[in-house]
Amino acid sequence: MTLSDAMLDAARQTESTLDDILTPEAATNHHKLILAMRYSVMLPGKRIRPYLVIEFCRLHGGDPQKAVRYAAAIEMLHTMSLIHDDLPAMDNDALRRGKPSNHVVFGEATAILAGDALLCEAFKAAADNTFCSPKQNISAVNALAEFGGADGMMGGQQIDLQSEKMSVPLPVLDDLVSKKTASLLSCSCLLGCIAADASKAEKNRAVDFGQKIGKVFQITDDILDLRGDQKLLGKSIGKDAKNGKSTYVSLLGEEKAKKLACELTEQAKEALLVYADSDSGKRLLELCDLLLSRDR
Amino acid sequence: MTLSDAMLDAARQTESTLDDILTPEAATNHHKLILAMRYSVMLPGKRIRPYLVIEFCRLHGGDPQKAVRYAAAIEMLHTMSLIHDDLPAMDNDALRRGKPSNHVVFGEATAILAGDALLCEAFKAAADNTFCSPKQNISAVNALAEFGGADGMMGGQQIDLQSEKMSVPLPVLDDLVSKKTASLLSCSCLLGCIAADASKAEKNRAVDFGQKIGKVFQITDDILDLRGDQKLLGKSIGKDAKNGKSTYVSLLGEEKAKKLACELTEQAKEALLVYADSDSGKRLLELCDLLLSRDR
Repeated sequence: MTLSDAMLDAARQTESTLDDILTPEAATNHHKLILAMRYSVMLPGKRIRPYLVIEFCRLHGGDPQKAVRYAAAIEMLHTMSLIHDDLPAMDNDALRRGKPSNHVVFGEATAILAGDALLCEAFKAAADNTFCSPKQNISAVNALAEFGGADGMMGGQQIDLQSEKMSVPLPVLDDLVSKKTASLLSCSCLLGCIAADASKAEKNRAVDFGQKIGKVFQITDDILDLRGDQKLLGKSIGKDAKNGKSTYVSLLGEEKAKKLACELTEQAKEALLVYADSDSGKRLLELCDLLLSRDR
Repeated sequence: MTLSDAMLDAARQTESTLDDILTPEAATNHHKLILAMRYSVMLPGKRIRPYLVIEFCRLHGGDPQKAVRYAAAIEMLHTMSLIHDDLPAMDNDALRRGKPSNHVVFGEATAILAGDALLCEAFKAAADNTFCSPKQNISAVNALAEFGGADGMMGGQQIDLQSEKMSVPLPVLDDLVSKKTASLLSCSCLLGCIAADASKAEKNRAVDFGQKIGKVFQITDDILDLRGDQKLLGKSIGKDAKNGKSTYVSLLGEEKAKKLACELTEQAKEALLVYADSDSGKRLLELCDLLLSRDR
């Protein structure tokens, strides 16, 4: 299976599960809330996190089926963060994945609730994974809460808020990116390991890999915000410069930032060398290069 | 133990656990987020939900210690709903539990994140309950997600939003209250049953009891919004009439609403008669009367 086929397959399986979970029933009084949750989750996205969950399960010898509900969980957690991030009180962004943001379509109040309710569904999807044991599902719930919550992604969003319209030192930017962007990628790799009952050492390696590609992902994002194509990206560009936000590009300059991204990509690939003989490992090595060179 | 002592004891144990969970570390970059989470959770409240969790555990022969983390979980879920409910885009309320609302103190963006992060911590507190089995903890996570999420409390908040500035028929108000107010009370009783490994029938009875007292709670709230003492209540009053909101009082009239609350209280107490010989049962019977006659 090529990387592209494996990504499409993971997206398809995850979307089918999300479709089952978020079924709108027109007869209910809270119908609109389900529609709002569904709207953002079903917008076409890269689905990198679900792919990582499923591929890391396969990488450690697990049946990919075991990982699908965890993949749906991380995608719902990711989506809720986008909905809340786009709110007027946060980034105030009217465009997401090429379409009007959730609050533009459904109103601010419903968008807040849709994010909240998606977070509940994310934990439920992990807790209810009948292909894994209760113990595995508890580990998955804990991983989602730790990497998603105050000491993970949400903590990163808080640092991001505080860093607006000011220059922050590199260690703070590193902490911000590690939490806001890399946390959920680490969590995705870890969830795959949990589904496959991988060892502690394998889990640590997966989390570390997620941190590395997370930073590469962010540096590429910073560069795309500067030079990207708004149509390809499906979101507004030029926001960082307009908001006077510190990025790897603003702190290091474009060349040094690109060099850092290359170095981190090499480190991420080195961490995968033990798996280089497997098809899964080969696809993940290819993904590292793709994240570095992506234009959307 | 008197009802009042049992409630104080449950509050003390829950607050001590919440204190442990939400420890601010000044050296972290996302320090402010933890402070915001802590601020709302630690405001003095009635802590009825934690009390119900712990008392329903005791009622079914469980060691109360097994229920404390579930009690902390439901209090965090409840608190996050208050933080988001008070936001300008939702109820726009500047006063909560007698103090400035979260967004008034910390700003809207941090208040949104604090609610999100409390929701993560709620699930983590349930998942991490070492006094119960992984299977029990999975049931607790599922209960929090089902009674808290789109088909529970959050769905009720959505119906509430849609019902503003218009008159809704009684069945819609019943659905709204059942979801928005009663859901978390049912969930509290159920969590106590889960901690005590109670039977399916006992769990169903507990959920039903929560629904009954939840509606009583809401009718009393509606009457207090009309005639209550803002200082005793610690929140703004007269909001329902000002917003032209449908309540049991506006739809049925004050006398009929009071009568309904009395009938529901009797039904709730009847459901507890099987436990009337135990100290736990007696305290819960007393609680029913207290919820009917409360002035705060």
